Amino acid sequence: MPSLSQLHAWIEKHRQEIRDDYFSFLRFPSISADPAHQSDLIACAKWVKGYIDRHLKMKSELIETKGAPLVFAEDLTEGSSTLLIYGHYDVQPVDPIELWESAPFTPTERDGFIYARGALDDKGQIYYALVAIRAWKELQGRLPLNLKFCIEGEEESSSLGLLSALPKLREKLKADHLLIPDFDRYDEKTFAMALGCRGLVALEVKLIGSKSDLHSGLYGGIAYNPNRALAELIASLWDERGKVAVPGFYDGVLGKDPREHYDFRGTKESYMKEAEIGAFGGERGCTLEEANWFRPTLEINGLVGGYGGAGTKTVIPKEAIAKISCRLVPNQDPTHVAQAIAAHLRKKAPSGMKVEIETYPGSRPFRGSPTSPLAQAFAKAAEEISPTPCKKVLSGASIPVVRELCEVTGASPVGIGLGLPSDNIHAPNERFDLPRLEQGICLVARTLAHL
Amino acid sequence: MPSLSQLHAWIEKHRQEIRDDYFSFLRFPSISADPAHQSDLIACAKWVKGYIDRHLKMKSELIETKGAPLVFAEDLTEGSSTLLIYGHYDVQPVDPIELWESAPFTPTERDGFIYARGALDDKGQIYYALVAIRAWKELQGRLPLNLKFCIEGEEESSSLGLLSALPKLREKLKADHLLIPDFDRYDEKTFAMALGCRGLVALEVKLIGSKSDLHSGLYGGIAYNPNRALAELIASLWDERGKVAVPGFYDGVLGKDPREHYDFRGTKESYMKEAEIGAFGGERGCTLEEANWFRPTLEINGLVGGYGGAGTKTVIPKEAIAKISCRLVPNQDPTHVAQAIAAHLRKKAPSGMKVEIETYPGSRPFRGSPTSPLAQAFAKAAEEISPTPCKKVLSGASIPVVRELCEVTGASPVGIGLGLPSDNIHAPNERFDLPRLEQGICLVARTLAHL
Repeated sequence: MPSLSQLHAWIEKHRQEIRDDYFSFLRFPSISADPAHQSDLIACAKWVKGYIDRHLKMKSELIETKGAPLVFAEDLTEGSSTLLIYGHYDVQPVDPIELWESAPFTPTERDGFIYARGALDDKGQIYYALVAIRAWKELQGRLPLNLKFCIEGEEESSSLGLLSALPKLREKLKADHLLIPDFDRYDEKTFAMALGCRGLVALEVKLIGSKSDLHSGLYGGIAYNPNRALAELIASLWDERGKVAVPGFYDGVLGKDPREHYDFRGTKESYMKEAEIGAFGGERGCTLEEANWFRPTLEINGLVGGYGGAGTKTVIPKEAIAKISCRLVPNQDPTHVAQAIAAHLRKKAPSGMKVEIETYPGSRPFRGSPTSPLAQAFAKAAEEISPTPCKKVLSGASIPVVRELCEVTGASPVGIGLGLPSDNIHAPNERFDLPRLEQGICLVARTLAHL
Repeated sequence: MPSLSQLHAWIEKHRQEIRDDYFSFLRFPSISADPAHQSDLIACAKWVKGYIDRHLKMKSELIETKGAPLVFAEDLTEGSSTLLIYGHYDVQPVDPIELWESAPFTPTERDGFIYARGALDDKGQIYYALVAIRAWKELQGRLPLNLKFCIEGEEESSSLGLLSALPKLREKLKADHLLIPDFDRYDEKTFAMALGCRGLVALEVKLIGSKSDLHSGLYGGIAYNPNRALAELIASLWDERGKVAVPGFYDGVLGKDPREHYDFRGTKESYMKEAEIGAFGGERGCTLEEANWFRPTLEINGLVGGYGGAGTKTVIPKEAIAKISCRLVPNQDPTHVAQAIAAHLRKKAPSGMKVEIETYPGSRPFRGSPTSPLAQAFAKAAEEISPTPCKKVLSGASIPVVRELCEVTGASPVGIGLGLPSDNIHAPNERFDLPRLEQGICLVARTLAHL
């Protein structure tokens, strides 16, 4: 097993090359949400496969999907167990582009940071995992267990390609442990293992009041304004205690097991200070930890109706739209939740008003176990590198494919990562730094050593 | 007094000239809402003054205001009473321009109609009033009473120039009768006198939840979503009977005097058929006539919050905005109503959420009397031209300056007009036709004859 000092020496020797390859990876504008970048996604996937072929000496292939290709690689030693590492080579869009201080696909070093879209999420994180395996092989030869990589190109736009390919990949992806390097540190000194995410389901509701916009004088008092109807409909989604008032919404919710312990970090004071949040919105009687990690939410992501420009326009709009999404917890079902909301909206809309509802594909929450071999190996590796004990966390966010990956592969998941809130993922001026990248290499290699 | 047949003969003789001048008037892109058209407004005002100077032989001037100039003209004969004719030479914007079948400022004859922005509202209507006075003078010489024109250039953008100039124009505008040719016919066969409009007040409310947009997973359950808060706030504006639930909102409302009779035309069936309205929104127990003419309304003209594009974006927006306007009835006060709504919004917003409210200048409702000399003269003229008796109507819409004009001048108002719903005012392909323009000339001249 390569020791930490062996790994440090290897990194020292390869520092320029590690950096150059990282920059090459970051130069692909692999934005999965934008169909114009389809060929960039393919070029980026090929680059990842090429990196594995050159340096990792694993059996690799590009697997076609309905969407962007998957990079799959495997190294089947005689190891008694199999580790699957899942990540993604696609990135978020770059808007608002004018707020970037350097071009998002020209990695730029500034004040000790590397600025680029994907610097962290998830190119930076999947890259240190790749380099860790390379270092292991160059230092040690054979891996201590069977290893597989599944690196997809649509995580930022709902993983539909991978999801639809999964049934055919059951044998290929079979594994005992699933490592997901797509999470954050706990803080600058402390690592964290992420043992779960919430699921997600989204829908859009449109209320149509008339065939065209109406004059608010000539029709005011006559037509039921769709903006008003929409506001009343949205207001009907919560009861006076802040619980979602949709029958069936909470079906299956497990809640927090009192025997579980996680390390939630936020306080009202920290949210007020960091995000200038003035009003808190969870259910009455819930702690912030429960509200963000153990309870489902319903959010209105968008409201659009009528005139939104400067000044006034005295119009009764012909229609009004709300975009809704819910974060789901074990064991809610996205389809059931979407149907329950749609039924509530149709029932509560004013009589005679047209209601159109569109539902988007959902994803289920996942949970790992702090006592799984991978969780324990990661904790040991983390504590070798950082003196403060590794924390156990969940995430209120979602990674669409993890639950399905666990079910198809049979693996137990652990999320890891080197991110900090100041890294600006999904925002302008995303960044990471080489010292953390090198820490990531050691962390993954030492996790293998303990597994 | 020129008889109808004398007027017809005069029109016959001048038909080409009437049409040419009308087209010249329509060619000015006098859009008052757009500062880029400031010089077009001035050029258009000069054209109107020039027309009066060439053909009407009245004392005319352009009066500067804070905004667009007023065209003022007077002819003080020894008449015992004074008629003031008020209209406007500015027009609505032309968006969406792509839906116009011919250029909006290139008047075009098609299928018997003249298509142009302002063809009816209000260039067409103020133009036939001008031509009527010209015809009278050419046929008869002296006018039967004192006559004044006040033609402004900002009616479509709230009349602020005229309103602020009014105190200084008290003597100049003094009159007994106020004729406002800016209304509609009752139907294709029937004229109507408009004896009142509702007033208007508008405000915008912005709820600010955080310093920037938030990730709906990482902050969902923590932050109070401003879209949700806005919907709840809007929903709180009505009670379960559809009455506005803002304390003080109805202060001063007179309601319908049972001795009054007006001719309301709409039925649920006609609104369902013409505008495809499916849901009706007035107060429970109100007739459509009461709801549109005798009760104030509160409308949400715009809702804007978060993501409005295609697909989904799982965001908790930093802010959400509603644009609100109210139509007011006698004797509500716009300032009082705006303050009442603002107080309600501030009181009902979630604790800790920032609330910003902007109020726009309001206007008061006006009422005329069906027994005023001008109303009776108009009814006689209308019945000479059309066999069906003239109807008495109100309007649910607003003309911002009329109430102030009545108070400053001492005149009793009557709205008249030749418009039909199919004329597309404020919309693409606005139109009017020459037979109705000629009817307007006769109508105004014969009204003078009976006054």
